[in-house]
Amino acid sequence: MAEQLKGIAASNGVAIAYAFLLEQPALNVQERAVSDVKREISRFQKAQKKAKRELETIRKKAFVQQGEENAEIFSAHILVLEDPEVIDAVESKIKEDGVNASFALQEVSTMYIKMFEDMGNTYMQARVTDIKDVSQRLLLHLAEVENTSLSAIDEETIVISHDLTPSDIAQLDRQYTLGFVTNIGGRTSHSAIMARSLEIPAVVGTEAITSIVKNGDLIIVDGTNGEVVINPDESTLNIFRERQRVLSAENAKQKRLIGLPSVTEDGATVELSANIGVPDDIKGVLENDADGIGLYRTEFLYMGRNRFPEEEEQFDAYRTVVEQMNGAPVLIRTLDVGGDKKLPYLDLPEELNPLLGFRAIRLCLEKTDMFRTQLRALLRASHYGNLKIMFPMVATLEELREAKTLVEEEKKRLTDEGHSIDERVSVGIMVETPSTAVAATSFAKEVDFFSIGTNDLVQYTLAADRTNERVSPLYQPYHPAVLQLIKNVIEASHAEGKWTGMCGEMAGEETAIPLLVGMGLDEFSMSAASILPARSLIRTFHSKDARALAERALLCGTADEVKEMVHSYPK
Amino acid sequence: MAEQLKGIAASNGVAIAYAFLLEQPALNVQERAVSDVKREISRFQKAQKKAKRELETIRKKAFVQQGEENAEIFSAHILVLEDPEVIDAVESKIKEDGVNASFALQEVSTMYIKMFEDMGNTYMQARVTDIKDVSQRLLLHLAEVENTSLSAIDEETIVISHDLTPSDIAQLDRQYTLGFVTNIGGRTSHSAIMARSLEIPAVVGTEAITSIVKNGDLIIVDGTNGEVVINPDESTLNIFRERQRVLSAENAKQKRLIGLPSVTEDGATVELSANIGVPDDIKGVLENDADGIGLYRTEFLYMGRNRFPEEEEQFDAYRTVVEQMNGAPVLIRTLDVGGDKKLPYLDLPEELNPLLGFRAIRLCLEKTDMFRTQLRALLRASHYGNLKIMFPMVATLEELREAKTLVEEEKKRLTDEGHSIDERVSVGIMVETPSTAVAATSFAKEVDFFSIGTNDLVQYTLAADRTNERVSPLYQPYHPAVLQLIKNVIEASHAEGKWTGMCGEMAGEETAIPLLVGMGLDEFSMSAASILPARSLIRTFHSKDARALAERALLCGTADEVKEMVHSYPK
Repeated sequence: MAEQLKGIAASNGVAIAYAFLLEQPALNVQERAVSDVKREISRFQKAQKKAKRELETIRKKAFVQQGEENAEIFSAHILVLEDPEVIDAVESKIKEDGVNASFALQEVSTMYIKMFEDMGNTYMQARVTDIKDVSQRLLLHLAEVENTSLSAIDEETIVISHDLTPSDIAQLDRQYTLGFVTNIGGRTSHSAIMARSLEIPAVVGTEAITSIVKNGDLIIVDGTNGEVVINPDESTLNIFRERQRVLSAENAKQKRLIGLPSVTEDGATVELSANIGVPDDIKGVLENDADGIGLYRTEFLYMGRNRFPEEEEQFDAYRTVVEQMNGAPVLIRTLDVGGDKKLPYLDLPEELNPLLGFRAIRLCLEKTDMFRTQLRALLRASHYGNLKIMFPMVATLEELREAKTLVEEEKKRLTDEGHSIDERVSVGIMVETPSTAVAATSFAKEVDFFSIGTNDLVQYTLAADRTNERVSPLYQPYHPAVLQLIKNVIEASHAEGKWTGMCGEMAGEETAIPLLVGMGLDEFSMSAASILPARSLIRTFHSKDARALAERALLCGTADEVKEMVHSYPK
Repeated sequence: MAEQLKGIAASNGVAIAYAFLLEQPALNVQERAVSDVKREISRFQKAQKKAKRELETIRKKAFVQQGEENAEIFSAHILVLEDPEVIDAVESKIKEDGVNASFALQEVSTMYIKMFEDMGNTYMQARVTDIKDVSQRLLLHLAEVENTSLSAIDEETIVISHDLTPSDIAQLDRQYTLGFVTNIGGRTSHSAIMARSLEIPAVVGTEAITSIVKNGDLIIVDGTNGEVVINPDESTLNIFRERQRVLSAENAKQKRLIGLPSVTEDGATVELSANIGVPDDIKGVLENDADGIGLYRTEFLYMGRNRFPEEEEQFDAYRTVVEQMNGAPVLIRTLDVGGDKKLPYLDLPEELNPLLGFRAIRLCLEKTDMFRTQLRALLRASHYGNLKIMFPMVATLEELREAKTLVEEEKKRLTDEGHSIDERVSVGIMVETPSTAVAATSFAKEVDFFSIGTNDLVQYTLAADRTNERVSPLYQPYHPAVLQLIKNVIEASHAEGKWTGMCGEMAGEETAIPLLVGMGLDEFSMSAASILPARSLIRTFHSKDARALAERALLCGTADEVKEMVHSYPK
């Protein structure tokens, strides 16, 4: 008999297939005395090595299929896996208590989990999820249980599970996994975010799905409306098949935009670029016909390792990207770590307010050896394509000038050493602090371009940490003050004959795009999957209507008024 | 023979007197087994009670003599003293290990100190100083040693010491302590800050002063130039006496400004107000002839206690202040806690970035019972003088509207209950977030006044936590973007017939005052001691020159350019 269940709409689309109930391998870890302590430690170390190789493979796969934001999760897992404090604690426990590795690991990870949970903030909650996932992976290796259930799926299915960890999702084969439904999770849980970037329809937080569904039940997942139907009758099936048809027609329409310009109805062209994290991401960029790369985050080159990457290694990565982009612009952001983004080999003091702390360009201008190495690699790669250098978190003209001096010095040294470089390589800055947005006129005289990083700019402008759920409602990208700052930056750049892009999340949002086109934004950088929907949207309106809309938005008092106005804008 | 020593200029002025070497009572704490554990715990509790009474007395004295910023230090000490975690740890140690209270206390505080020191940030460093000071005080009580050396001084002296703790300084008698010199400390150490507010000449960080000076040596302290002379000859004495004469003439000149208006040479009048923390501070406000109170911080009413203060108690405090100010304006800021300002009875989660977190109006709009109590007390006090209500950290119009709705509701209830209130009491906001400064035009329509809180506004605009020494150079009040925001706020208020004040540190700075007069700032609120120097300065220039200066400052690229320009401005 047909049964319906409501949950939280996590990822759009409708999927229809038979259920696959994912059962987590039960790992009943018991304390056990071991006599050969040395052998037990070596078992632990082997499990660790295997887990690391596995995570590196998953990370690469995630980059290609799910974009760099999701791949970051696995970089975090590798950091946890290699945390010397954790390793020490487990190994001493094995040695001193003479217990088995699984038990020692479980004790240590439980202690960390408890400690982080007690801190009771959102950031630490995410760390807890990471530790659980890594510890589960290690326990599986120690028990020599193969966690292959997911990768073994070889027919079209809807995965039904209590929860899905990022590792689970990375193992899903898109060809066979048409959708998933879980008991727990919300719209911003890892599983929901990953489902959206994989473009797999998903419903989460149904509470009871695993106790209702049996293997082989026919399932409809409507991830747009948060509906699940179990063993539907014919007429219900027809309704949902019709919804599927409408969606896939929309999708096909977007695919037809490949090769077409990103242009408004009245002929105003903008550039739609993609954000990437590693050279492998280029596949998705090319598939989605991006006009260029608006943000290449270079942090991944520095992560999951024991020391700074050498010039040669960086040069290879940058060169690969610019060559593959074949003359299209590639904006490469110099290293943005510090604050809450840590590197194991870079010892930084704890900070009370890391978001207002020693990070990005602030750190690079102090660690100039490290910074010069990156600049040299960038300059050398500039010879092979259309590379542009971009500094993050610039708040004062002095910082910009210092950074530019380093670029000039390395240019001269490289030329003296006989390297070919693009002498006129563009140098620009991210606009992330209110100071730079307000004083954009001064900065515009000394940069080649701006790229607005709305994630940080909004946080600082509203003085609200978006990862802190107590104040996240104050994280308002549509606050009229934010719009005013964006407009100020764009106008300041145009007055000096320069251009402005945006590489914060806002650039890919349906509500933001008409406003930003109306303010004259030149370049929009977003996840590769958003490029064609954005192009589709831009081709539906007139730039002069967008201008009128933006002007009206700037007169609004609140973010809600702005959003209402845009949503009631006649298409 | 005369000897000269250079140190760090910590507090301006020249003092000449004989040396008093302060020696810290040596407390050689030894582990000792105690049989009567109960008696030992009760000794510890008695020592704690004594220490608390003492700290409360010192806090009151510090309020009157040194202003509310310094008094806050002792509120922090009381919090440490009453920390249930610390008390529990010491008492269990006595009970379980059967040791003496002094030893148990020393063990526990050493553990905390180590833990906080390991965190390695500036904020935690300050906590370490607090714990050391409190623990020393408790140990003295437990040893029944009277720490009276400082309060026993009864002739004019220069205090010479390795360091001075806030408690030491609070015990200094201004009548007899003409100056002090220490081995350690910097311009922003507690001792330096307190010396400045006490207006005692001081040189810190001399490294060697205690090993050079003997009791009874004649000492010259030049706190303006960071110089110390030991046993000067007659000609050296004459040089420094001349410096003293010049300074005291300057001082006397300022005292003659009492009763005169704060007006530029060409007749533009501004209001010079004082910041206060408790009703007792009014003494200093009246002595220094302030035109009003520009910031009454209400946090002290909520600190050092176990539950929220009642309406009646708050009403008494507010009424006392407005009555004593006798019709002059009194701007009272509603509760500004949260983030790193904690209350023992208000349980808030730890935050990763407390400065971008759940604080001030954000917290008040959630804890409306607490907020309504404060609003009722304020409204009732409004009947007795010229009271104005001011909300901190407003970032969106919604917050302002919510807060105003609560005010209106409580007005109505109070009137219904038969209370007399000022129906037209002014309601304004602090401008501390960039969002509010940028969107000031919208806010100006819905407030009676603005007061710019530059300390926070600068931190958010530059994205730099000023207490984090790694980025404190980026805390730039003279960044052209900050000036632009200030100008925007002032102009927006004037366009609506409203006025703008400033109650951040900048308002009292010599460099800022001409710029702010030039931008049209209506009210300047500062520490009481700065009022007459500010009035003296304002009476030396023309408002039209100040306007030209401000216009030129807004065209500068960097904070350094702004400061150079102001300093080269012909007086």
